[in-house]
Amino acid sequence: MERGHTHTLFLTRLILLLLLILVTVTTCDSHIHGSRANQGETLMAFRRSRNRPQVNTVNENLIIESSYNEMKTDDNGRRMEDDYIQGGLPGQPSSKGSLFKQYAGYINVDRINGRSLFYYFVEALHEPSSKPLVLWLNGGPGCSSLGVGAMLEIGPFGVNPDGKTLYSRRFSWNKVANILFLESPAGVGFSYSNTSSDYDLSGDKRTTDDSYTFLVNWFIRFPHYKNNDFYIIGESYAGFYIPELADVITKKNMEGHSTSIINFKGIMIGNGIMNEDTDDKGFNDYLWSHALISDEIYTKLTQNCSNANNSDYCDELEEELGEEIGDIDFYNIYGPTCTPLPHGLSTRKKRHKGLDPCEGEYVTTYLNSPNVQKVFHANTTKLSYPWQTCSQLITKWKDSPSTMFPIYKRLMASGLRILLYSGDVDAVVPVSGTRYSIDAMNLKVVKPWRYWTDSTKQVAGYKVVYEGLTFATVRGAGHEVPRFQPRQAFALLKMFLANRD
Amino acid sequence: MERGHTHTLFLTRLILLLLLILVTVTTCDSHIHGSRANQGETLMAFRRSRNRPQVNTVNENLIIESSYNEMKTDDNGRRMEDDYIQGGLPGQPSSKGSLFKQYAGYINVDRINGRSLFYYFVEALHEPSSKPLVLWLNGGPGCSSLGVGAMLEIGPFGVNPDGKTLYSRRFSWNKVANILFLESPAGVGFSYSNTSSDYDLSGDKRTTDDSYTFLVNWFIRFPHYKNNDFYIIGESYAGFYIPELADVITKKNMEGHSTSIINFKGIMIGNGIMNEDTDDKGFNDYLWSHALISDEIYTKLTQNCSNANNSDYCDELEEELGEEIGDIDFYNIYGPTCTPLPHGLSTRKKRHKGLDPCEGEYVTTYLNSPNVQKVFHANTTKLSYPWQTCSQLITKWKDSPSTMFPIYKRLMASGLRILLYSGDVDAVVPVSGTRYSIDAMNLKVVKPWRYWTDSTKQVAGYKVVYEGLTFATVRGAGHEVPRFQPRQAFALLKMFLANRD
Repeated sequence: MERGHTHTLFLTRLILLLLLILVTVTTCDSHIHGSRANQGETLMAFRRSRNRPQVNTVNENLIIESSYNEMKTDDNGRRMEDDYIQGGLPGQPSSKGSLFKQYAGYINVDRINGRSLFYYFVEALHEPSSKPLVLWLNGGPGCSSLGVGAMLEIGPFGVNPDGKTLYSRRFSWNKVANILFLESPAGVGFSYSNTSSDYDLSGDKRTTDDSYTFLVNWFIRFPHYKNNDFYIIGESYAGFYIPELADVITKKNMEGHSTSIINFKGIMIGNGIMNEDTDDKGFNDYLWSHALISDEIYTKLTQNCSNANNSDYCDELEEELGEEIGDIDFYNIYGPTCTPLPHGLSTRKKRHKGLDPCEGEYVTTYLNSPNVQKVFHANTTKLSYPWQTCSQLITKWKDSPSTMFPIYKRLMASGLRILLYSGDVDAVVPVSGTRYSIDAMNLKVVKPWRYWTDSTKQVAGYKVVYEGLTFATVRGAGHEVPRFQPRQAFALLKMFLANRD
Repeated sequence: MERGHTHTLFLTRLILLLLLILVTVTTCDSHIHGSRANQGETLMAFRRSRNRPQVNTVNENLIIESSYNEMKTDDNGRRMEDDYIQGGLPGQPSSKGSLFKQYAGYINVDRINGRSLFYYFVEALHEPSSKPLVLWLNGGPGCSSLGVGAMLEIGPFGVNPDGKTLYSRRFSWNKVANILFLESPAGVGFSYSNTSSDYDLSGDKRTTDDSYTFLVNWFIRFPHYKNNDFYIIGESYAGFYIPELADVITKKNMEGHSTSIINFKGIMIGNGIMNEDTDDKGFNDYLWSHALISDEIYTKLTQNCSNANNSDYCDELEEELGEEIGDIDFYNIYGPTCTPLPHGLSTRKKRHKGLDPCEGEYVTTYLNSPNVQKVFHANTTKLSYPWQTCSQLITKWKDSPSTMFPIYKRLMASGLRILLYSGDVDAVVPVSGTRYSIDAMNLKVVKPWRYWTDSTKQVAGYKVVYEGLTFATVRGAGHEVPRFQPRQAFALLKMFLANRD
């Protein structure tokens, strides 16, 4: 029985994973769900996604016809001060209470339907006015930048196993930048719509439009950040969100209503999806070369199930593949998984060293505390469901491109600084896929492949500078690079912001 | 200057590494050298190896014409009792003093030239007489089973940073077996020859003959182990030693002088070299798929420098490759390297968790202590050089096959139990190479690829059972599997000894 149960669980993980790659339209970073039950539910959403209309392709003119309304949205005159988190977050280390300012709240992005996006903004530790502003986006689609990016990766605090107290994150990115975490699209985390049919209209285009509207209006609420250097950074499915949003910003900047011009400097994307065929090929090759699958399955996969082929045969293959691989963390293939608590225990012990694979659970507990939500100015409309790492409201996804290449071409032509990075022990959007994708763009190498180091002088990864784009790996990092290798990720961020290649 | 120095060092590592793979004839596991100076010296030995006559090939009849002399060698009547380590090793935890017996000493394998091989024998913790006997062999060629296998991997004790005291190894293999560590061939560690020209006659054949002679005579000294199930286990270049020695034992057993029959049951080889072409291909592919090298170098390597091609062009390529990769531990690609001590410090701090990449240094210090050598009954002839992890006396290697396939065929036919295992984060003899090699043997799959677990129920690796041979991976383990993943390696050993597939 136990065996059968485990079986179902890893099958679940696997099918979910493959769908992320094969269908491209994905829902969320499954492993960061608080509980295994959530993974099962997420899978159902994934499964249903197979019946949706097929993905769109990006061409030279797509995405850009933004429905963004230049008019300021109605936020009832809410001011920055109203979003200030007085005295810090519940349970945060007292010594850090007044070192930097934190804000959180909603920006309305659609007056008629009542779509509001939730943000959490952390000012830089020192001299925020002179520091760049970074918008951080998690992927999925459907996963929370607050729960993943802020609490598990780069924010100033992580959550202890009690689900109530926080610890200071050593390599918090607000040591060098102001960080704006956006829960996007509506339906993710605390972001919502008053019109429930809105969720079924989710897709890349809607996400981009709403995010842009959010940004313009956020700058109205925080006007003194208008001239700071602005960057967008994120990972996974944000490999689509970020170029798409960047494309809109670039276009809108050129159209040039001076009130909405954003001082946009660059984008940085970690383990991002990029181009369907090469991502698929990279995924298959990665599984074999990292000794996760048999020769037999590998041969079948490469011969029959690339190019977003979703036949019944491939479904069966995915099940076989799941049996072979077992319950490992695809997002960090050499790491531990979060196993269920032993009988009789209700809380986990604090791990003294290294990664705690169960930290997502603590985050979920923390963010569902009414007191925490109050301090965050979140859930003001009393949503009928709990905060979740990855949304289960979004079960349909209207549009998703098969490639980002055309957008990259435009962005490179615009002179935007672009860094693609890749944690090399992630099997979900593996480094092999990103390499194949970049190769397919046929860019000229400006500085050849070379190791780079962090402050410890150990090799932190490899880097190659192309004309218009830099690619860097992070050695031993999983899908959420700053979570798995915080020191290296922080070093990479600093290099990127300083424009050091 | 600092930069230039670092440069030279990693180049040194790299060239050394590539030679291991490309030339097949290798010297030693470089990273386990106590100091960086040693690595440079080892490299010189490697470099010189290029000028040696090319490697031999194995055919159906090779290896077996052993020059072993069935006569008992002259050990001046030395008895088991003389080799007993009374009161345990210097600095060993006092609580473990009398739990199991330890022996160490020399067995003479050549009366005329005075070649003597050093062994360290650890009896099983409980009921040794009913436990199997395991001969452990490290590779190189030229590296010490005492310094690497016993002290860094599977022996009862490891060495603390003080170089004087020992700690108990949690997953010591003597919990389930009696372990015999052999320093082989003469010139390695405490093993020596009184005829210095002997060292230039080192090679696979000499090693095999001497090891067999050692074994027969060791059983004369320890006759009560004669009927225990006997296994040979080891790694790296022992991927040649072990099948070769197994082949001789099998043949000699069939010839059947009853006094020398060994109750031989099986072999187990970790990250062992196996077959030149497929090992080469696996090495190149592994470097690319693990994002260690550029597309450009990968293409050049695969097009021009496989099949033991040693052209000047390939030498240059190795240098380029070294610059790209930097100073990482090829034996554990995601792990830390042992960096030089900061100025003003003479000893390292004890690492509280995880792997200490500098432990090889502590072992070298420990084994060079005169008191330690006395207790080990080692260095009785007062060698003119210090004990070293990998020999620098052996600078020529007379014979080395290009493939083990013919021997494997014989061994499988003889019914010997064979387990090949592979730590999957080793770039030296990577899992891709071993997979290609096994594939090239065209064996029938009996039980398909499937994950296996250790006591924590986490996925420990993957396993596939072929007709005559089993292959298992160890997830997240480097070249010395029991060093990097002791729990998993121990679980694998128990499965192997219990004949559980």
